[in-house]
Amino acid sequence: MARSLAEIVARFGGELKGDGAQEVCGLATLESAGAQQLSFLANPKYRGQLSSTKAGAVILAAEMAELCPAAAIVTPQPYLYFARVSQWLSDVPMPVPGIHASAVVESPVPSSVSIGAHCWIGRDVEIGADSVLYPGVAIYPGCRIGRRAIIHAGAVIGSDGFGFAKDGETWVKIAQTGRVLVGDDVEIGANTTIDRGALEDTVIEDGVKLDNQIQIGHNVRIGKNTALAGCVGIAGSAKVGAGCTAGGGAIILGHLTLADNVHVSAGTLVTKSITVPGSYTGTVPFMAHDDWQKNFARLRHLDAMADKIRALEKRLAHFENMLEKKA
Amino acid sequence: MARSLAEIVARFGGELKGDGAQEVCGLATLESAGAQQLSFLANPKYRGQLSSTKAGAVILAAEMAELCPAAAIVTPQPYLYFARVSQWLSDVPMPVPGIHASAVVESPVPSSVSIGAHCWIGRDVEIGADSVLYPGVAIYPGCRIGRRAIIHAGAVIGSDGFGFAKDGETWVKIAQTGRVLVGDDVEIGANTTIDRGALEDTVIEDGVKLDNQIQIGHNVRIGKNTALAGCVGIAGSAKVGAGCTAGGGAIILGHLTLADNVHVSAGTLVTKSITVPGSYTGTVPFMAHDDWQKNFARLRHLDAMADKIRALEKRLAHFENMLEKKA
Amino acid sequence: MARSLAEIVARFGGELKGDGAQEVCGLATLESAGAQQLSFLANPKYRGQLSSTKAGAVILAAEMAELCPAAAIVTPQPYLYFARVSQWLSDVPMPVPGIHASAVVESPVPSSVSIGAHCWIGRDVEIGADSVLYPGVAIYPGCRIGRRAIIHAGAVIGSDGFGFAKDGETWVKIAQTGRVLVGDDVEIGANTTIDRGALEDTVIEDGVKLDNQIQIGHNVRIGKNTALAGCVGIAGSAKVGAGCTAGGGAIILGHLTLADNVHVSAGTLVTKSITVPGSYTGTVPFMAHDDWQKNFARLRHLDAMADKIRALEKRLAHFENMLEKKA
Repeated sequence: MARSLAEIVARFGGELKGDGAQEVCGLATLESAGAQQLSFLANPKYRGQLSSTKAGAVILAAEMAELCPAAAIVTPQPYLYFARVSQWLSDVPMPVPGIHASAVVESPVPSSVSIGAHCWIGRDVEIGADSVLYPGVAIYPGCRIGRRAIIHAGAVIGSDGFGFAKDGETWVKIAQTGRVLVGDDVEIGANTTIDRGALEDTVIEDGVKLDNQIQIGHNVRIGKNTALAGCVGIAGSAKVGAGCTAGGGAIILGHLTLADNVHVSAGTLVTKSITVPGSYTGTVPFMAHDDWQKNFARLRHLDAMADKIRALEKRLAHFENMLEKKA
Repeated sequence: MARSLAEIVARFGGELKGDGAQEVCGLATLESAGAQQLSFLANPKYRGQLSSTKAGAVILAAEMAELCPAAAIVTPQPYLYFARVSQWLSDVPMPVPGIHASAVVESPVPSSVSIGAHCWIGRDVEIGADSVLYPGVAIYPGCRIGRRAIIHAGAVIGSDGFGFAKDGETWVKIAQTGRVLVGDDVEIGANTTIDRGALEDTVIEDGVKLDNQIQIGHNVRIGKNTALAGCVGIAGSAKVGAGCTAGGGAIILGHLTLADNVHVSAGTLVTKSITVPGSYTGTVPFMAHDDWQKNFARLRHLDAMADKIRALEKRLAHFENMLEKKA
Repeated sequence: MARSLAEIVARFGGELKGDGAQEVCGLATLESAGAQQLSFLANPKYRGQLSSTKAGAVILAAEMAELCPAAAIVTPQPYLYFARVSQWLSDVPMPVPGIHASAVVESPVPSSVSIGAHCWIGRDVEIGADSVLYPGVAIYPGCRIGRRAIIHAGAVIGSDGFGFAKDGETWVKIAQTGRVLVGDDVEIGANTTIDRGALEDTVIEDGVKLDNQIQIGHNVRIGKNTALAGCVGIAGSAKVGAGCTAGGGAIILGHLTLADNVHVSAGTLVTKSITVPGSYTGTVPFMAHDDWQKNFARLRHLDAMADKIRALEKRLAHFENMLEKKA
């Protein structure tokens, strides 16, 4: 849908440099935008792309405005501005409120909620206003979803946690009687799974963003505004603070506590609690396979290497003492 | 549902210390239990919580009974006892036998089986008595599920294994003509996938417990009572023994054999067969990102470090020889 | 279905050694095949199994023909031949063209396409001829699937990419307005997820094969005939070349470029672009847990070890200089 720059600035703020009557009908990168499109410059290191852009207009910071050959919307946070405009200009059809005829909904749901095809909403489930469930979402009995949730296709919320007691060689299932409680403004990615608690509840606080293929174990608590990338796994009873992030494929073991504002790198296995905010990593560098074979075989002998160094130090100290005495 | 302690002991055994007429209506941890709830002390290291618990009654071992301020059920295996009682006291609504109207079931199924909304059961599938399939489970043609299975939402059983032959630069699909055979008393987690065999069958033996988001490749065999945590991947034709466990995100490569009672730590990549029971690990410690950068850059030069140590040993031996001759 | 060897050779080529009227009704390994079955010898290292096989006939290379006690189909590429025959002899029921009554299909679809139970095809989706969607596949609006696609149960194509801008402590969603474009002859595994692009499209080129539980982020491009094993994650805006492979659980970080014919080992985290074709690895050896504890604790002190080696070298050089002067 075409919008004039004046309309955009009226709605989202910012200072317009150019003709307010000029219209744009979508967003694009500086490199690919055409005259009908609005672009943005969020990272100053891409400023070189400004001179050659064919964008009709560009969202940017004040210090970049001079360099812009097209109309400009000047704002202190161009990326945030872009995010807000992107939703307004999007022409991807959004799910409409209502329950698809093929969905199986066993609990009352507000009329502002959209429940896609083949969803299952179990008994005693509560879903907050303005939430969107894409097709194929399953929500087990007793779980609660906050307002403005976006839950993508195939996500499963409230499946049994993985809890068993040993009885000789076999396993006896522990009933998983807790719920999953999801706050407001949470997004849950496609095929992500969140288990119900064993005795207590699994809690996903307000503003949490979960990517696809994530596994959240029973009794876990994820703090406000924490964002987890794809394929992350959080084992049972872990407590993750607010404002945390985890990169793709990171795994956090069970019963650990992560402070607020902890950032776990992609592929990192977190094996103990983290009490100090900051970035944490535990991954190995990749290399050409042949180099890797030569280097990483040494890992089996790291302890022996340390012993050899200690032995060398002793032998050398022995000499040094001898020479000192002589001198 | 409220139950008297006498009823519980009559059903599950154990020695009651207290008033058999006292009722409890659910389970809770020592810390959170109220007077209407039954709790348990499984791990002696939490004995300190006994003195302050408000639980109506506690399941515990004989040597802890003296410390308990409330009624007690004394049993040699409190955690196992708790597991059994948990199922009986659970008020989470269980799926009832029968086939949901929205399910597509192309094979006959025993009347004791529960098939949830939007499940698909292909042709020539067999499902054992008393099994529960939560909504959205897909079972491809020809697969067999044993008795008392619990299969969580979104699990896929019998999809094609990943088998292709190279034809120049393109891939030619190898028909996957085996089945998936699942034994009795198996639990399969939400969104877990188990591929059908290529020529032979993929086999999940009795009592196996699979958490969420697990991938089992074609021709794999998982031995009796083995339990795999979330996000584990088992590549094609691997044979995992009985009584094994694997922690979250562990990966077992294809065509390997793991003996019975092998325990693979979370995040570990198993690259060769394991013939001796025991625990196996291959992960790196995580640390503050800056420390990691300093330390792990060294991994690229581990081979060079070993060479330097060898060179030092030679030079030092040379001295030692010289001095010996002098002396 | 029984087929004569003459029929097979007439259809797929190769030289028949034996009786063309002999019939086979399926494929099996050399070890398990019976007289009614066709087997194959692809890897010369298994030639020892030829002498004892009970297979009715064997597909093999010319240099192995002498060793074969049964009828033989001689071809330069036995594994490829086996792949082709496997599809023709398979008795696993294939989905038939047509749209299952329970599917929700909001776009026109060619009559040769098979849409399984409980699939959802959003608006403005295009699906090429002869494609097969197993039950429970979700395709979001605007995505395009090529011809002869095979998409397994639970796969989700076109869900929103993971894109947010920070607004103080909260996240503002960036509309994901790109599409997913999937080429011809692509296979997509069970519960695999492919996100739509943010501004541009996510592109899966012709002939790509994706195993189960894979996550492909927004704006990713996967080149022709690339094959990714189970549980692989490709983060946003990564560009993977043609003819690449990645082993199970490998993770490729965002905004990287991998050249054509790059092979990433299982469990490897790719943290920077790869410009040279070849095999790349970054994993640690696993070992018995006790050995691991001893060895891997050293990883925390690798930097210190390198410093100690350098100190030893200096001290030793000091001696060597002294002795040289004396001499």
